[in-house]
Amino acid sequence: MSDVGQVQPVSEFDTETAVRARPGDDGVFDADLGEGWRIGAGVNGGVTLALAARALRERLGPQQPDPLAISGYYLTPTAPGPAIVRTQVARRGRAVSVGEASLQQTGPDGLEVERMRVLATYGDLAGIDGDARTTASPPQLPPPDQCISSSDAPPDFLKAATLLDRLDLRLDPATTGWAVGKPSGNGVIRGWLRFADGREPDVLSLLLAVDALPPVAFELGLPGWTPTLELTVQVRSRPAPGWLRVALSSRTMSGGYLEEDAEVWDSRDRLVAISRQLARAASVRPPA
Amino acid sequence: MSDVGQVQPVSEFDTETAVRARPGDDGVFDADLGEGWRIGAGVNGGVTLALAARALRERLGPQQPDPLAISGYYLTPTAPGPAIVRTQVARRGRAVSVGEASLQQTGPDGLEVERMRVLATYGDLAGIDGDARTTASPPQLPPPDQCISSSDAPPDFLKAATLLDRLDLRLDPATTGWAVGKPSGNGVIRGWLRFADGREPDVLSLLLAVDALPPVAFELGLPGWTPTLELTVQVRSRPAPGWLRVALSSRTMSGGYLEEDAEVWDSRDRLVAISRQLARAASVRPPA
Repeated sequence: MSDVGQVQPVSEFDTETAVRARPGDDGVFDADLGEGWRIGAGVNGGVTLALAARALRERLGPQQPDPLAISGYYLTPTAPGPAIVRTQVARRGRAVSVGEASLQQTGPDGLEVERMRVLATYGDLAGIDGDARTTASPPQLPPPDQCISSSDAPPDFLKAATLLDRLDLRLDPATTGWAVGKPSGNGVIRGWLRFADGREPDVLSLLLAVDALPPVAFELGLPGWTPTLELTVQVRSRPAPGWLRVALSSRTMSGGYLEEDAEVWDSRDRLVAISRQLARAASVRPPA
Repeated sequence: MSDVGQVQPVSEFDTETAVRARPGDDGVFDADLGEGWRIGAGVNGGVTLALAARALRERLGPQQPDPLAISGYYLTPTAPGPAIVRTQVARRGRAVSVGEASLQQTGPDGLEVERMRVLATYGDLAGIDGDARTTASPPQLPPPDQCISSSDAPPDFLKAATLLDRLDLRLDPATTGWAVGKPSGNGVIRGWLRFADGREPDVLSLLLAVDALPPVAFELGLPGWTPTLELTVQVRSRPAPGWLRVALSSRTMSGGYLEEDAEVWDSRDRLVAISRQLARAASVRPPA
C-alpha cells in the first residue's frame, strides 16, 4: 500500500511472530517475544506454535506456505524476550514437504534452553475450498454482542493474561459457568474470536485461535493451570475475513491428563482448522 | 515363565517391532520389518509408529515407559526389510520426558532414506485408572460372531494386505457398505480387534490398533489409497486383556485432505487411546 501513500497497519500478531533469518546460518531465525501474549509467566503456546510455523514457512518456501498438520511438543515454558528458531527440512515433495523446528531461549546462566519442538507437513491451500465436504456443523452461539467479552474479566485476571488485551473474545454465556463458580461439567466452551487491532485471520493466526480461549478444563470444574504437553493442528482452508468461531471440547480425563479438541469456523461457515492437545491438570500431578 | 519350564509364546507383533541397541552408538537401534505387516507395498503406519515407540521407550528408560502423546510424520513408504531408528532425548522431566525418533532404511543406491519422524511425550500410566472421568461412551456394535471377519475378504485383498493375517478383525456390518459398493457416506467404521496369535493388547499395540482398520475414507465413498501424512495418538490407560473395540470417524474433507479419528476401548469399557490422522485421498491430489 505504500505506493499510494497509505500507512501500512502494524499487526501486533505479525510483529510478535516475526522471524529474521540469521545471515550465514542456514535455517536459523531470530525472534523477539513480547510481554503482550502471556498467560501467567509464559507466552501462550498457540503464539509460540505460530512463531515456529512462520520460521518453517520461510524455510520451506513460498510454493508450500500452509501447515496442513503441525505438532508442537512443549518442553519448558517460553518467557517473553529473545528466542531462536532452528529449522530443518525433513523431506521435500511435490505436493507436500515436512520440516522440523526447535524454539530455544538463553537461560539466566547463558545456556540455551529448548522451549518446544515442532514437526509439520506443509502444502498449498490456495484455491482448494471448492471440493470440501463435511458432516460437521458450525457451533451455535448467540451473536457477539450477546456474549461475554473477555475484557469484562476481573482486572487481576487480565493482568495475568496479557494475551486477552490483543484479542476480542466473546464467550457464549452458556459455557461460562466456571467464571461464577458453577462449571457445567459438560467440557465445552464456545466463543467468537478476532484480533483486537482489526487484523484479519489467516492460516498462521489459526494456530493461535485453537489455544486462545480459557482452558476447557475450567468448565470441567478444574480451575487450575492446565499446561499443554502437545498440540497438533490440522489447517483445512485459508479463513475468510471476519469473526472466527471456536468450539472447545473435552471428553476424557484420566490420571490427570485430558485432551482439548478445538474446531475453528470462519465467517463463511467453513471448518478451517481442527486441533487436539494433551494437557495436564496440575492439581492432579505436579509439573515435571 | 521360563522358570516354570513353560515355553514363552512368541508374539508376531513383538518380533516385528523388536529393536536392538547398536553397541557403542548411543540411541541407535536396529530393526527388521517383515513381510507380514504390509498394506500394499508398504509396512502399516501403525506398526512403524509402534516400532519407533519401542525404541523411544528403550531410550527414555523404564520409569516413563508409556507414550502419553506420540506424533508420526510420514515421509516415504516403509518397505519390509532392515531399518534403523535413531533416537534423541529432547527433555527429561520428573513426570514426563520428550523424545524424538527417526526411522530410516537404506535405499537401492546404498543411501539412507528417512521413512518417518516422530515426537513423543512419555510418562507412567501404571495405576492411574482410578480417577478417570469421561462423557464418552463405548461404540455399540454386534458381538464379534455377528460381525464381518477380515478373513472373509477377497483373496486378492488379503494378499495385498498381509497385515490382516496377523489380526482378528470383526467389522460391524452396519459400517461395511463400502465392501459391496454401497458406502454409507457417514464416515464411520467400527470393529472388534485382537491379535490372531492371542497376544494381549498393551500400550504399544494400541499404536497399531488406531491404524489397523480399513480407511474410514472407504465409507465416505473414496475407494482409493489414502496415505497417512501425520498420525498422533494419545494413550490414556494400559488396556485390559481381551478384545479391543475401535471406532473410526471422519467429518471433513477439503482439497483432498481428510482426518481420520480413532477411539480404542478395552474390555473393561475404558477409552484407552484416541488418535487423529491427516490422510490424503489420492484420487484428488497425486502423491508428493
